Amino acid sequence: MFINENVKEIKISDIRIIAEKLQKYSNSINLTIGEPDLEVAQEIKEAAAYHALNSKIKYSPVGGLPELREKVAKYYNENFGGNYNINNVIITVGSTEALSSTMQTILAKGDEVLIPTPAYVGYEPLSNFYGAVPRFIDMRENNFSLTAEILEKNITEKTKLIILTYPNNPSGMILDEEEMGKIVKLLKDREIYLISDEIYASITFDKYTSFAKYSEELKKQLIIINGFSKSHCMTGYRVGYILTNEELQAQIKKVSQYKITSTSTLSQLAAITALDKCSDVSVAKEIYKKRVEFFVNEIEKIGFKCLKPKGAFYVFASYENIEKLKNINSLELAFDILEKIHLGLVPGSAFKVEGYVRFSIVHDIPVLKEAIERLEKYILEK
Amino acid sequence: MFINENVKEIKISDIRIIAEKLQKYSNSINLTIGEPDLEVAQEIKEAAAYHALNSKIKYSPVGGLPELREKVAKYYNENFGGNYNINNVIITVGSTEALSSTMQTILAKGDEVLIPTPAYVGYEPLSNFYGAVPRFIDMRENNFSLTAEILEKNITEKTKLIILTYPNNPSGMILDEEEMGKIVKLLKDREIYLISDEIYASITFDKYTSFAKYSEELKKQLIIINGFSKSHCMTGYRVGYILTNEELQAQIKKVSQYKITSTSTLSQLAAITALDKCSDVSVAKEIYKKRVEFFVNEIEKIGFKCLKPKGAFYVFASYENIEKLKNINSLELAFDILEKIHLGLVPGSAFKVEGYVRFSIVHDIPVLKEAIERLEKYILEK
Repeated sequence: MFINENVKEIKISDIRIIAEKLQKYSNSINLTIGEPDLEVAQEIKEAAAYHALNSKIKYSPVGGLPELREKVAKYYNENFGGNYNINNVIITVGSTEALSSTMQTILAKGDEVLIPTPAYVGYEPLSNFYGAVPRFIDMRENNFSLTAEILEKNITEKTKLIILTYPNNPSGMILDEEEMGKIVKLLKDREIYLISDEIYASITFDKYTSFAKYSEELKKQLIIINGFSKSHCMTGYRVGYILTNEELQAQIKKVSQYKITSTSTLSQLAAITALDKCSDVSVAKEIYKKRVEFFVNEIEKIGFKCLKPKGAFYVFASYENIEKLKNINSLELAFDILEKIHLGLVPGSAFKVEGYVRFSIVHDIPVLKEAIERLEKYILEK
Repeated sequence: MFINENVKEIKISDIRIIAEKLQKYSNSINLTIGEPDLEVAQEIKEAAAYHALNSKIKYSPVGGLPELREKVAKYYNENFGGNYNINNVIITVGSTEALSSTMQTILAKGDEVLIPTPAYVGYEPLSNFYGAVPRFIDMRENNFSLTAEILEKNITEKTKLIILTYPNNPSGMILDEEEMGKIVKLLKDREIYLISDEIYASITFDKYTSFAKYSEELKKQLIIINGFSKSHCMTGYRVGYILTNEELQAQIKKVSQYKITSTSTLSQLAAITALDKCSDVSVAKEIYKKRVEFFVNEIEKIGFKCLKPKGAFYVFASYENIEKLKNINSLELAFDILEKIHLGLVPGSAFKVEGYVRFSIVHDIPVLKEAIERLEKYILEK
């Protein structure tokens, strides 16, 4: 029977295959998945329980509960210098639906989507879904630092959308502020949308500037995407959001309405409590920072070379200086490491960068230490 | 800025506009929305509260929690004569995502989607989203009874998908069993998909046969869509599901993964309890039946003519025998009724049938009585 071409072409992701194979081993260490081991805050758990028992959990209005939309706008204005109100916000099924509903609204067949590497794995299939073509900008030459100049060089007549992800998954890099200003100038008068995927914005170890600061200058084209999965460890609650101008908000909302109706009302009520009572995430941030610094330090001792993460909870490490590994492609290496030492990591190829692997730093230091020890032994015995 | 043509063309639905205008009136009666006033069962509420407090609410696997998928297959086999297992099931964000992810997987530009009327409002924009063309079959001539002959007459070379909704929203009709057998024969060897939208399957007042009975004969093309919103009043939890063959399940799952990742894990855990402890919905069914029968009876006394609902909780009524109303189109009538007597109902035009209106029987008898009284007065004074 017929299957849509854009769907048929999507392969099951390598991350998934590795994560599934890992389950065979009782002593496995899983550093593949972007999901922290930290617990959801007690206040949020209690709010969810309270509302399950005492509130009517009915359809939420399309676009989300007004109270949550209002609080998200306020949160972004206060924390990231935006200029948003309730009519700029759509609540989504995590940031995944935020991305897919937005891209479905603004893309058409033949459009090009510019994506600097390393790039989150979802951007490519989503571009393809809606008939657009992802164009990855190879950022290796500039040590993964995006500049306005690089962006400009890659813009063509077909460029409809640029997707920037800072703090970056997998590299943890953030955008240089001066370059950010130049990028804003570059895009200001063009018919090009900018998605700023800020899902890791609350997990930063350094000064971080959100594109929300430029919400007025880039009003017509800026779409900010974020959610509660990473900031509040609420992955399983599925609450994300979109911030954009009112006209575009109204268009994306129509897509979201017919695609999903809305995300869980119970989860939205829990998210209100997350903003009311748990918007200070500095404790979690400190934990991530300590773990990431430990891991970078230790893994460089055994020959890997890392981009120094300024946010998120990943370490993106090159193995090109390790003589015994440097000629192996990253997918092959990931599978070999999986089989030999039962350690799960993601090949750089998943993010369109060869010679690198990504470690998700989602466990505590003793587990990370064990992972490093296994890796050291693996290299020695190779 | 550019907006995708298929998105731009979607108008805000009349149902929404009417529901919003209704809010202006303090004495309004809202019979527009497909959401019962009944409460979620206490066991389900308690399960949600328990898991919020005591379980790790992490990402569920793509396609849903294995335990829930397994129980859904079993539920369908036991209640509707299916032959399904865990690998046939995908858990979705309500039946809306079930529809949208399925249609995105199986449709391509130029395909035709056959839909008998009256038709649920979401089918048209979803067909358009994915480049397909909805072809509505005008069922008035056959008193809204679908036959294999009518279906066959409407199939063209371009027909890729047929969507059948029984019990029907808005008419409450179900499919004649003999005709169902003929439809199965008609479709069996064709390259045409069949979506059986069975979201009201558990609310039936008469003998009802699900297409699951033909899950083997129609294996290659049958896609059953259902969920917990109507059967368990869990609208705000957002849990739906798809049942189909394993190959198609794997393809749709890829779409669902990149579109939404998965629906709320907390809601899925609550849905497991719904199947374990609350699968007998006969009490709710009795309530709906009593209300619907009351309403049909009363509204025919004042001149409306109804299709006798055999399921769901709607009354689809013709006003073509009411002299004073018969020349008004249904949208105009709905707005006039809204303004004059503050009663919200949905025009037949929303379902592609003129001369009819839909009443959602989601309130108890005293409210329904009041609605009838207002309608009677409205007609008298017209």
